[in-house]
Amino acid sequence: VSTIADPSLAAAGAARIAWADAQMPVLRSLRARLAAERPLDGLAVAACLHVTAETANLVRALRAGGASVALCAANPLSTQDDAAAALVAEGAEVHAVRGEDSGAYAHHVATLVGARPQITLDDGADLLTVAHAAGMAGTLLAGTEETTTGLLRIRGLAAEGRLACPVVAVNEAWTERLFNDRYGTGQSALDGILRATNLLLAGRTVVVLGYGVTGQGIAQRARGAGARVVVCEVDPVRALEACMEGFEVLPALRAAELGEVFVTVTGSAGVLGAEHLERMRDGAVLANAGHFDVEIDLDALREAATGGVREVLPLVEEYLLADGRRLNLLASGRVVNLAAGQGHPPAAMDLSFALHVLVVEHLARHGAGLAPAVHPVPEAIDREVARLKLASLGVAIDVPTAEQLAYLERFRAVGWPVA
Amino acid sequence: VSTIADPSLAAAGAARIAWADAQMPVLRSLRARLAAERPLDGLAVAACLHVTAETANLVRALRAGGASVALCAANPLSTQDDAAAALVAEGAEVHAVRGEDSGAYAHHVATLVGARPQITLDDGADLLTVAHAAGMAGTLLAGTEETTTGLLRIRGLAAEGRLACPVVAVNEAWTERLFNDRYGTGQSALDGILRATNLLLAGRTVVVLGYGVTGQGIAQRARGAGARVVVCEVDPVRALEACMEGFEVLPALRAAELGEVFVTVTGSAGVLGAEHLERMRDGAVLANAGHFDVEIDLDALREAATGGVREVLPLVEEYLLADGRRLNLLASGRVVNLAAGQGHPPAAMDLSFALHVLVVEHLARHGAGLAPAVHPVPEAIDREVARLKLASLGVAIDVPTAEQLAYLERFRAVGWPVA
Amino acid sequence: VSTIADPSLAAAGAARIAWADAQMPVLRSLRARLAAERPLDGLAVAACLHVTAETANLVRALRAGGASVALCAANPLSTQDDAAAALVAEGAEVHAVRGEDSGAYAHHVATLVGARPQITLDDGADLLTVAHAAGMAGTLLAGTEETTTGLLRIRGLAAEGRLACPVVAVNEAWTERLFNDRYGTGQSALDGILRATNLLLAGRTVVVLGYGVTGQGIAQRARGAGARVVVCEVDPVRALEACMEGFEVLPALRAAELGEVFVTVTGSAGVLGAEHLERMRDGAVLANAGHFDVEIDLDALREAATGGVREVLPLVEEYLLADGRRLNLLASGRVVNLAAGQGHPPAAMDLSFALHVLVVEHLARHGAGLAPAVHPVPEAIDREVARLKLASLGVAIDVPTAEQLAYLERFRAVGWPVA
Amino acid sequence: VSTIADPSLAAAGAARIAWADAQMPVLRSLRARLAAERPLDGLAVAACLHVTAETANLVRALRAGGASVALCAANPLSTQDDAAAALVAEGAEVHAVRGEDSGAYAHHVATLVGARPQITLDDGADLLTVAHAAGMAGTLLAGTEETTTGLLRIRGLAAEGRLACPVVAVNEAWTERLFNDRYGTGQSALDGILRATNLLLAGRTVVVLGYGVTGQGIAQRARGAGARVVVCEVDPVRALEACMEGFEVLPALRAAELGEVFVTVTGSAGVLGAEHLERMRDGAVLANAGHFDVEIDLDALREAATGGVREVLPLVEEYLLADGRRLNLLASGRVVNLAAGQGHPPAAMDLSFALHVLVVEHLARHGAGLAPAVHPVPEAIDREVARLKLASLGVAIDVPTAEQLAYLERFRAVGWPVA
Repeated sequence: VSTIADPSLAAAGAARIAWADAQMPVLRSLRARLAAERPLDGLAVAACLHVTAETANLVRALRAGGASVALCAANPLSTQDDAAAALVAEGAEVHAVRGEDSGAYAHHVATLVGARPQITLDDGADLLTVAHAAGMAGTLLAGTEETTTGLLRIRGLAAEGRLACPVVAVNEAWTERLFNDRYGTGQSALDGILRATNLLLAGRTVVVLGYGVTGQGIAQRARGAGARVVVCEVDPVRALEACMEGFEVLPALRAAELGEVFVTVTGSAGVLGAEHLERMRDGAVLANAGHFDVEIDLDALREAATGGVREVLPLVEEYLLADGRRLNLLASGRVVNLAAGQGHPPAAMDLSFALHVLVVEHLARHGAGLAPAVHPVPEAIDREVARLKLASLGVAIDVPTAEQLAYLERFRAVGWPVA
Repeated sequence: VSTIADPSLAAAGAARIAWADAQMPVLRSLRARLAAERPLDGLAVAACLHVTAETANLVRALRAGGASVALCAANPLSTQDDAAAALVAEGAEVHAVRGEDSGAYAHHVATLVGARPQITLDDGADLLTVAHAAGMAGTLLAGTEETTTGLLRIRGLAAEGRLACPVVAVNEAWTERLFNDRYGTGQSALDGILRATNLLLAGRTVVVLGYGVTGQGIAQRARGAGARVVVCEVDPVRALEACMEGFEVLPALRAAELGEVFVTVTGSAGVLGAEHLERMRDGAVLANAGHFDVEIDLDALREAATGGVREVLPLVEEYLLADGRRLNLLASGRVVNLAAGQGHPPAAMDLSFALHVLVVEHLARHGAGLAPAVHPVPEAIDREVARLKLASLGVAIDVPTAEQLAYLERFRAVGWPVA
Repeated sequence: VSTIADPSLAAAGAARIAWADAQMPVLRSLRARLAAERPLDGLAVAACLHVTAETANLVRALRAGGASVALCAANPLSTQDDAAAALVAEGAEVHAVRGEDSGAYAHHVATLVGARPQITLDDGADLLTVAHAAGMAGTLLAGTEETTTGLLRIRGLAAEGRLACPVVAVNEAWTERLFNDRYGTGQSALDGILRATNLLLAGRTVVVLGYGVTGQGIAQRARGAGARVVVCEVDPVRALEACMEGFEVLPALRAAELGEVFVTVTGSAGVLGAEHLERMRDGAVLANAGHFDVEIDLDALREAATGGVREVLPLVEEYLLADGRRLNLLASGRVVNLAAGQGHPPAAMDLSFALHVLVVEHLARHGAGLAPAVHPVPEAIDREVARLKLASLGVAIDVPTAEQLAYLERFRAVGWPVA
Repeated sequence: VSTIADPSLAAAGAARIAWADAQMPVLRSLRARLAAERPLDGLAVAACLHVTAETANLVRALRAGGASVALCAANPLSTQDDAAAALVAEGAEVHAVRGEDSGAYAHHVATLVGARPQITLDDGADLLTVAHAAGMAGTLLAGTEETTTGLLRIRGLAAEGRLACPVVAVNEAWTERLFNDRYGTGQSALDGILRATNLLLAGRTVVVLGYGVTGQGIAQRARGAGARVVVCEVDPVRALEACMEGFEVLPALRAAELGEVFVTVTGSAGVLGAEHLERMRDGAVLANAGHFDVEIDLDALREAATGGVREVLPLVEEYLLADGRRLNLLASGRVVNLAAGQGHPPAAMDLSFALHVLVVEHLARHGAGLAPAVHPVPEAIDREVARLKLASLGVAIDVPTAEQLAYLERFRAVGWPVA
């Protein structure tokens, strides 16, 4: 019943999954516990995620806990066909072929929804959107979502009063923010840029558009590699924080004149448009680290390139403007860490997927009572993931003593030290 | 009616206040607007804050807006008698003498509460605590509080159902956190240590106990000065974040063996106790950057110092242990940035007091409807402060275009791009 | 007369060379000047360098200046067959096939030496060594060398009184040190590790063995990416500098217990041997960024791996030890930035090769008078390269005024201000 | 025979010296060895240095080794009268009174030279200059100098063929450069600025003029404190290095428009002149970290200040320009770390003075044979100082094994691996 490219890739996929597993100690420790406790026995889970070796280890952990899992691809370009084959060989259901067209993709999403799962795991809200469109969302125990973009869609449904099931905002857990966004994308976006271009970051002016958690991670790492970093941001509080961290903060039109590398990570659209392209230096490199390929205005870029477009390196297209300047677009404006690199490091996905597992376990135990709304990840789960990660690193920390707890308590109770 | 040390210091105080004013462009711009709009006409404000040149500029802004202000000292050691004199010369009411004893202090707090103010501004919750003890809190329009410690006390009252007025948690505003804690104390705690000891941070092992926003600021700056930084933290999420920022995270007992400088900033008590002192290296420097002088166990230190205690430099006491090791306590364990330095830089206080002004204005306009509970600073005020600060820096930022707002909106509305 | 893999790759190679050229503005500006001035007319140059697109641009600049150039490969694994083909199509002589065996390699070196060049350009001193062995070095105008390793060999010859021609130590020019070592290898060594493993640097303990200029670059960048960095170094001055920059400095045996990633860059041999392997953590990653594959003791590693060796990812071999620990060796211990990445970024090679061009021009004009010894790059050339690079970045700097020059001069002359 | 302010300050001075001694473990270990070995018995040393507690410990180490020492003040403002008194109480000869005028100062220098010392220790070359002017330099065994400025003067003498004794350039030892310049002044210059102004570095634009070793230290630390740092430099190689470390490099006239804090550390004169002052922002802070007070053009500043000059804080003078802008000059343009702070931390002076001791010991043993020229500190001394410092930090490092030494040797000898 699975739809994959080539079952004979299973052995190669198993090796890749084993390597990722070695990098994912938190998920591994959870898999061991779940296999012993079987808290997910009989639970039907549908997951629309990047089909990679890391995701395969999430699926393995859920199945070890007793769940049945069906998986399709949140992005047709990120599917690792060998990992898909290995999962099927292990007994999971997978519908994903690298490079599948949008028709195939929609069909796979529909297949998963049609099978009436109890819990959905989304990376972009496609399962939930389709389930709502098909009127099937009401029968879900709950869903999870792990992108800001997906949550925008879900909150759109909620605002219209149409949200029919509880949804847990996994990507808003603090450990997820840190690992997936600041550290994961923070590193892998630059890594993707280096793989595509082999440019030297030291001494280079890097413009980071968007200073959310991910933008912070990119900006810090670019600076750590010797770049001069300029930040563009529309929110005054974030812009001020960037200033206070020593970054130069400029309006995008002014930054356009200075930048040698541009990285968009705003969640918005058209942040680099015609008027920015007009001002850029010859040889500027444009990369997008946001979820959708709309942050750089590709239409404006094509219109400006009256001299033509050519691929100068794999994943690097050179746009030749009328005045002779050349702008280099990476990965067609798609999310650069996935398209030009290998996406999040397994160590980042380790925490993200550990959160997913604990959330699914929580929903299996307590999900029945939840209202149809967007729910945060319980703080205790955040702390438990952090605790497991520290243990995997061999890092010990203190616990407050009884006296210290009493101090804080007494403090509260009697209004010490004045009263 | 004021109680100050020496009215003849008014001229010196005015010069000091003018210098601080030059460093506080945000507060200055608010003072100008309030003087024009007079939104606080007739409002009676009582403030128990550090009586410094910066606070004087807060008082001036509130008075420019029409309020009458009475001020006493949140800490008897931080009072600048010249600033107090200048304020009185301008017409404010001040009850503060540097070094006043606890009896005088309690009397001043009682005086302010007894005058039946409409709004209280607290740094440690003393006005509110006394107002509640005296049964006068119910008549307050509202209070504000700007320390974590003070909020613990207020939330203690609330938990017992005794909180009788609304309180705005100014120190939990994000701009306040950043400026007062990460940047203000982050810089001034190290500054205080350097002023007291003139030690070289490069190559030195600095142990930061507590990795909240303030601890982050201290740890980053110590690293930026070339120190090897070790972090101790009891919360696993914060401990993990410290790890991921490249800091070494250790239990305090292990850190005790390595550290050459210790800075406590936990909000808890006794985090450096007898068993830590036992393990420290000869010459270790102990400083506290938390609100109360309880983070280093001073009793344990005195007991351990069988060889005696002597002042080796102003604000540096050397404790001689039985085995010949010498431990150097700074500022008697009091908050080191105030006791050994000049406290927060005016630029940090600028934002903090701008928040206070906007919150008082907000309360004057809308406070009547608020429930007796702890309220956050409205996000719009946070953004307004950041906006004013960016303007004062000459930093321009973009605003989202109509298309971008529409993109985000459409996104929400129609579940784009799948449905 | 050339020996290359496949002439039909010329078009692909030309595109790759053009891209590199766009990243090498300094070399490009020199090519333009040399083409106009033709200072190298009639000069025969032999070069044994990495045969890559960047080197191709060096060859093009020399040929533009009038030289004839023959090129062979300093490392058979780094040859880009398409770049070789494009050079041949342009008229250069190339003897290099990716993966050629040592016999073929020795033959190519001998061919170049046998053609009696006037100037040799070496990356490892093979041309000069063979020329000396063959008794042909005395007829050379001069040679250049660009590795520390090669210079050790040449200085060995000089110490024995056998050096028969002047040699310019290009890699000891300060701009070369900075760009090739601190920035070039500093970035690309980590880049190679990430490409091979996709591991997350944040929170990871990275041990850098060797704190020379390259080790500094690696250590800084690893820290900039969020790693906890430990440095091992045998020279006390360098070790102390690492301490003062905030790095933890440890003996290698102690570091072996802590590290998750090890990078050797010492120029020495066997710095990670049996006793270090014994202490390492399960999953440790071993990479070498030094010139030769002798820094990690590969024999000791093979002996320890009683459980076998397997490739877990391309360029990642897992060594399974008797106690179940797995050690991951990257690129068989060969220099990781070349073997697992793309080597130095073009922007680093730009400066390195600009130095080469200016040195060759200098030798063509003034080389006849040089003694058979190792000579530094003239400081004026260092400054000229820096000046051209700043110009290419659009960075303007000041020049001292006449008054300032006079101040410094007067100072020297009259012993101002006392006498 | 000594000339000091007040002998009754000896006890206070002794306490201050003891505290400094506790921060100077390297000098302390040398003092112990010299006291046992007495290699300086009978040697007459004259020293013109800053008369501080740290220098007192240098004097004590030399005297422990058997030397007689006479001391005068290299800068009349830095003299600590209590330290001077304590030294005299111990039996040293001191001629220094805080704030002495230039006549007194010249007299003290002349007194020391007239006593016919065998070795001079200079901080600015005054002893050597006067000895040369008086025709007495030829009888000196040797001198040492520890400032760049002093060396310029000495090399001026040498260039004219007038240098009559050997001089060791202590400040060009690498450990001295690092500790005195990069770490010592790097930290203390900013510390002086903070003590004078209490400004917040985070988010502030700091312009560092001069990117020598000291400028690097200041720039790194300012960035580490959250400042946006702009570098001005006339040497293209240094300017390029600043770029590659991620700093913004600008001509001084452009930087003048951006800066909020300016720090000059060029060794040149008039680097901030009338045309820079014209462009500065209201409230800009001007500090000099170079040896002489000529880097900021004070005449130009006074001329521009048509609105007058007033002291707004101790050590902060506000210059009011015609257009209403206010420029704040720190410490009258004198070297800010000494004038507004406490100068180099003892830990920096520890290495500097350990170098002095070892150099004096070296000269006592081997100085007779030295030519009248400027000599570098022997590398072995540099390494010995670093070794002692690491030992004092408890940092162990490896030594190369016999195999490793043989590897490097063989390498040199046989031209391995090709020949």
